[in-house]
Amino acid sequence: MATLKFSSLAGRLRRSEIRELLKVTLHPDTISFAGGLPDPAIFPYQAVEAASQRVIKEQGRRALQYSPTEGEPFLREQLSAFMQRQGDIAKPEDIIVVSSSQQALDLLGKIFIDPGDPVIVERPTYLGTIQAFRAFGADFCGVEMDDDGIIPEELEKTIVRLQRQGRKPKFIYLIPDFQNPAGVTLSMERRKRVLEIASRYDLLIAEDSPYRELRFRGEMLPSLYAMDTEGRVLLMKTLSKMFCPGFRLGWMTGPAEVLDKIVMAKQMTDLCTSAYTSILTGFLIQDGHIERQIEISKNLYIRKAEVMLNALEKYMPAIEGLSWSKPDGGMFLWVRLPEYMDTAEMITEAVKLKVVYVVGTGFFADGSGHNAMRLNYSYPTEEKIVEGVQRLAQVIKSRVRDTSKKTTIQR
Amino acid sequence: MATLKFSSLAGRLRRSEIRELLKVTLHPDTISFAGGLPDPAIFPYQAVEAASQRVIKEQGRRALQYSPTEGEPFLREQLSAFMQRQGDIAKPEDIIVVSSSQQALDLLGKIFIDPGDPVIVERPTYLGTIQAFRAFGADFCGVEMDDDGIIPEELEKTIVRLQRQGRKPKFIYLIPDFQNPAGVTLSMERRKRVLEIASRYDLLIAEDSPYRELRFRGEMLPSLYAMDTEGRVLLMKTLSKMFCPGFRLGWMTGPAEVLDKIVMAKQMTDLCTSAYTSILTGFLIQDGHIERQIEISKNLYIRKAEVMLNALEKYMPAIEGLSWSKPDGGMFLWVRLPEYMDTAEMITEAVKLKVVYVVGTGFFADGSGHNAMRLNYSYPTEEKIVEGVQRLAQVIKSRVRDTSKKTTIQR
Repeated sequence: MATLKFSSLAGRLRRSEIRELLKVTLHPDTISFAGGLPDPAIFPYQAVEAASQRVIKEQGRRALQYSPTEGEPFLREQLSAFMQRQGDIAKPEDIIVVSSSQQALDLLGKIFIDPGDPVIVERPTYLGTIQAFRAFGADFCGVEMDDDGIIPEELEKTIVRLQRQGRKPKFIYLIPDFQNPAGVTLSMERRKRVLEIASRYDLLIAEDSPYRELRFRGEMLPSLYAMDTEGRVLLMKTLSKMFCPGFRLGWMTGPAEVLDKIVMAKQMTDLCTSAYTSILTGFLIQDGHIERQIEISKNLYIRKAEVMLNALEKYMPAIEGLSWSKPDGGMFLWVRLPEYMDTAEMITEAVKLKVVYVVGTGFFADGSGHNAMRLNYSYPTEEKIVEGVQRLAQVIKSRVRDTSKKTTIQR
Repeated sequence: MATLKFSSLAGRLRRSEIRELLKVTLHPDTISFAGGLPDPAIFPYQAVEAASQRVIKEQGRRALQYSPTEGEPFLREQLSAFMQRQGDIAKPEDIIVVSSSQQALDLLGKIFIDPGDPVIVERPTYLGTIQAFRAFGADFCGVEMDDDGIIPEELEKTIVRLQRQGRKPKFIYLIPDFQNPAGVTLSMERRKRVLEIASRYDLLIAEDSPYRELRFRGEMLPSLYAMDTEGRVLLMKTLSKMFCPGFRLGWMTGPAEVLDKIVMAKQMTDLCTSAYTSILTGFLIQDGHIERQIEISKNLYIRKAEVMLNALEKYMPAIEGLSWSKPDGGMFLWVRLPEYMDTAEMITEAVKLKVVYVVGTGFFADGSGHNAMRLNYSYPTEEKIVEGVQRLAQVIKSRVRDTSKKTTIQR
């Protein structure tokens, strides 16, 4: 075996908490609130099967060959049409097909981030984003959120603080809709403010938007990309949450100068995305199956979210410092525990009781979040959600400190 | 539009010559000797169609879901079985599925290469490898080849030269079989020597092996991976050349410590490879379609290579300094022109005459190769090969310097 010397990037790689937990969930009786998996019970099996029978017959020569790095033209056309129906305008030639939105994050890291470069993110933010940007050595500048999403005043403060240090963030990375993990949505008023701030300080916004279509109630807000009048929003989309993850398909659109570099970076990264799954997906979009699947997913996930919220209400101890988000869409609940609890420490017992979640620290680049956890409700069945919450409540109850002593003394 | 500041990696990205040429080849009457595309006339349409009908029926739930980062277990089993039939031993759990061998190159770059790090490559070497490793800032140390592949004495000299500078190459990157672009194969004797040298200097070998199965004549030589007794060879395989490129599927196996980092890097890169195409491909391997396709490809490409060789013999001017490789397998011919010719300069006229090739400089990290070109014979039809060589000969003839003057004076 050769003596190996890895790169500095390799030194910044971390084993994913989710991934390790997914291994655990292979035991059939463990209830997984980890991961961000859609419910396979509603996967569009018939539609995929029907479309798959057309791929070879109608587009076989293209489907089995290399596709252009920018993406299979037929899929780009269909994505453009789909976007338009969702209120976002992009010409097919301005859409870059990527092999999942995780690849979009990698490409973004590649073309923008040198070690030490500041990048603005929500706090907390998506675990996979931290993994990707950290590998390139990003200096994460986390901005606080409240129930209306990222706080504009805090965002501006962060930019000004960096400015005083002679630094400028490479971009502002946001998940405006049903943020992962916090579950909150950026309000309309805040969207305008964020765009104003980006304009004032001449900054690029990277809008990661995997859950926007999965809205349970209220009106869909326009994307930052759609509201932007200055060409400073890069939109990142994926089919994994609104359709299915098995094809590894996402797309990007935005400023031409950025897309140009993205294509060059994609070429060295994987040459092109699968023409086969691109054409298959093109047929599915063309026939309206994405919208149909979005409706089916929303109807199921709103119920599952409700079941989880009810179970939390019923089984969790009524203690100070324990709270959770009430999602209007998406796939996740964000649970905050009392400061003295540690979800990383608790996970061992949770695994013993056959329930898993994602430890909060995974969503903070600075290692905080020890007393938080992310719960997924899209994957487990309703019965398992109730059972899993009961198990989780048992773990949490065992950690509750007896504060009655203090009370006793005061009597 | 935001003022953008890209990363140093972005500054090292180059637009691919092949890619730009592929755009040109979209004109239906341009004959393309560029690219490395398999012939769509022999794609296994029926087999893919039949297998695609089984994916949802038999493995639907897995096929549409995320797969483990390491790869879909069923595909890993089938790849292990396929490898064994080809003389390479790897357990399924030691095989990492990747989304094309270009991704393998990206992952290798990620985990090993910091700017300035020396990497040993053949000279010339694969264009996509230069793109990927250059992006990470590799210092390419090119080693000369002859008709038996890389020259061991030159390899050792390069290692010793680096050693004197206090440097050690991160790995030796080789394409031992039907090297791209040079077309040569590393002899059995040289394989032993290369492994000895790697052992003596304690180095890792990255063996890129996309063409090994496509041997026209003579016996298949064992892979360096199979010959290695010290666990210092990382093997990189792809289905793009021996089966079809449309699924974007490759795989890696080798030292556990390397694979471990590769998995972590893949996770931040695209989370996982498509479960759908993995299962589809698993069925195809299981039913023997890969081996069948290899036979079909070999039978066609040996004939096409012959047609190209005959056309070159017939139409190219008999001038000093013009020669080409005689491939025993693979997809490419490597043409060397007289020193005073420049294939980059010539390409404009070639495009006018509706024939394209890849300019030699793309295969040298140091910008040499101005008088070389790579010709692909797997993609164009036999008629187009003959026609294309005639057009190419016309371009070359127009560049021949009249050396008769000198001769006249001597008379």
